[in-house]
Amino acid sequence: MTTSHSDLDSFGPDDERMLKAWLSERRHLVDEALRRALPAPDRWPKRMHEAMCYSLFGGGKRIRPVLVLAAFEAVGGARDLPYEAALPAACGVEMVHTYSLVHDDLPAMDDDDERRGRPTNHKQFGEGMAVLAGDALLTEAFAAVLDTDAYGGTADPALMTQVGRGLSRASGWLGMVGGQSLDLGMESPVITHDELAFLHRRKTGELFRFSCWSGALLGRGSEAQCAALGEYGETLGLSFQVVDDVLDELEDTTERADDAAETPSFPALIGLDASRKLAAELADRALASLEGFGVEADPLRRLAWFTVHRDH
Amino acid sequence: MTTSHSDLDSFGPDDERMLKAWLSERRHLVDEALRRALPAPDRWPKRMHEAMCYSLFGGGKRIRPVLVLAAFEAVGGARDLPYEAALPAACGVEMVHTYSLVHDDLPAMDDDDERRGRPTNHKQFGEGMAVLAGDALLTEAFAAVLDTDAYGGTADPALMTQVGRGLSRASGWLGMVGGQSLDLGMESPVITHDELAFLHRRKTGELFRFSCWSGALLGRGSEAQCAALGEYGETLGLSFQVVDDVLDELEDTTERADDAAETPSFPALIGLDASRKLAAELADRALASLEGFGVEADPLRRLAWFTVHRDH
Repeated sequence: MTTSHSDLDSFGPDDERMLKAWLSERRHLVDEALRRALPAPDRWPKRMHEAMCYSLFGGGKRIRPVLVLAAFEAVGGARDLPYEAALPAACGVEMVHTYSLVHDDLPAMDDDDERRGRPTNHKQFGEGMAVLAGDALLTEAFAAVLDTDAYGGTADPALMTQVGRGLSRASGWLGMVGGQSLDLGMESPVITHDELAFLHRRKTGELFRFSCWSGALLGRGSEAQCAALGEYGETLGLSFQVVDDVLDELEDTTERADDAAETPSFPALIGLDASRKLAAELADRALASLEGFGVEADPLRRLAWFTVHRDH
Repeated sequence: MTTSHSDLDSFGPDDERMLKAWLSERRHLVDEALRRALPAPDRWPKRMHEAMCYSLFGGGKRIRPVLVLAAFEAVGGARDLPYEAALPAACGVEMVHTYSLVHDDLPAMDDDDERRGRPTNHKQFGEGMAVLAGDALLTEAFAAVLDTDAYGGTADPALMTQVGRGLSRASGWLGMVGGQSLDLGMESPVITHDELAFLHRRKTGELFRFSCWSGALLGRGSEAQCAALGEYGETLGLSFQVVDDVLDELEDTTERADDAAETPSFPALIGLDASRKLAAELADRALASLEGFGVEADPLRRLAWFTVHRDH
């Protein structure tokens, strides 16, 4: 078994196999916790519950909640605490991510008809319901994080308050939502590589940072550990976005290039090879943030590797 | 000075004068706290900040945040604690209320072009930005409530967690947003008086209940006091909605009656006189919830009276 890799080249097929087994178990924990957090209503509002669950259980990769659990494990949280100690933050971040997709797909935003091979939420339920279901998912994210009963007996209001505020900061006007405003061209134009990286650090990086930071915090990691894992998360998030752009470019299905007014992709701005190199450098930097951690951080190391070696 | 009224008929011009002076001072506190919670950004995202502030400082009556402060005073909170102890909840509930108006006005929802004598948010900033500015206000509401530094040295994480969760529950899919889903005809049809009252208890009552309950909690009221003031709030909220419907009917500016598919108003369902009587009964019931309270609850008593005696 390979452990504590210090660079991406030392990973191999064993790592991929171990990562996939690890991911599968963690995703199962997350799905179960999400189902518990959103029980079907007895009589009302059934349609809204359906619309929320349509997107929340619509085949997402669960990367952000899995990062919460991976960071929780990396600080040794899983030795002394049940996974329930981290699952509320995992549920919260996935609800926020899901709401952002539902709203981003709206006609007034990216105007997408399909996501994950199915009609988008507003195509399935109508535009009004898609706005409301998104609002409801965002609102419910904070109920999930602040639900004392969901922590399996480990609830600590001081930590819950920090996590709730962190989730708001990461996803709010100075974080993810502000990034989306930049992406839609509602703020200053995005022209340089630095501006594009700034945008994606807000739109994607902040929520990745929150995931790793909150998992570490709830695993009772030290301040230095929480900071290091937060750094890992933001860097991984940016790498993840660069790879997404590269994969879009290769598949040639992106409609972005057709519209000069829209945000450029990394390949459009710096070329395909430089984008690939950038993604690898970022993943390496993420890996370097894990230097002080032991084998408990191996899932995070493998995730950094996988991010740049995935093909979808 | 008249104090501790037990029914609506005993109120007079003195009460109106005292209430107006009291309201004016409390609104000023709320406005200042909202400005502090949303400082202008140095360079980014300016347009989004503008869109958020356009609606947040667009002439709202501040009823919900003022109820937070009134309940805080009613349990004696203002004797031992600074108003800062309750202002985070006041800011949070006003941000939630404001976001709900921005989203409700969208073309996919009520499709309104004007609010408070100005263009609605999406008319002023475009539909995409209105969705995002609403999302940002909702998200920021939780940052406001969970901001330890905003409590003027009185922050108690256990209380903050309760308040944050309460705000989510009141405004989420089983509260305000679910009520809006009913109102837009996306759930079962609303035909009877009971169904209409159920809708408005969700859409308006829950946030009124939260306001009074959280103010009492942050003023360190007893469990019984928090429950009584929560009950006052929900009942007042329903009364408030009935009066709104009555005023709309009298002004004859409502477009609702034209569209049979939309939710009926109280006058349309039970008639104008019965609606007036219902509003007064509800306000009387709200007043009765205050029976155990002293003169510190007089602003709440006057608010109940004012709710049914206002002309706009």
